[in-house]
Amino acid sequence: MKARVTVTLKNGILDPQGKAIEGALKSLGVSGIASVRQGKVFDIELDGADKAKAEAALKAAADKLLANTVIENYRVEVLG
Amino acid sequence: MKARVTVTLKNGILDPQGKAIEGALKSLGVSGIASVRQGKVFDIELDGADKAKAEAALKAAADKLLANTVIENYRVEVLG
Repeated sequence: MKARVTVTLKNGILDPQGKAIEGALKSLGVSGIASVRQGKVFDIELDGADKAKAEAALKAAADKLLANTVIENYRVEVLG
Repeated sequence: MKARVTVTLKNGILDPQGKAIEGALKSLGVSGIASVRQGKVFDIELDGADKAKAEAALKAAADKLLANTVIENYRVEVLG
């Protein structure tokens, strides 16, 4: 089974990397960009076909390792 | 207008970071994970309301800066 976990910074948390990308895009002449925030995405392949079990494993993985829940939100999607 | 650009490694490109995450999840006792590949996600806020113009700007941004198209694929979604 395939799944995707997307980790993004919470609102209000400063994102210097995003700001740097914003500046770089301006320097490169890409116009119309107001702001950029960077996050991470994890494409995960799971054993077995039990969707509920997969979601539980992914939630555990995100809480324990993939996301810092103090400053980041995560979203789990099981793609089937 | 809001948009999201997702950058992932092409198939066949080694992902040592993903492998390390896989190993760490195993050590942490999260079971059922067969493989992990890491990518990046950019949440972008755009000026104006012209969807076609926004898509063109995002494509330019991805080609010039956000993705290394030799080893990475990218996907642009305009969320409206």
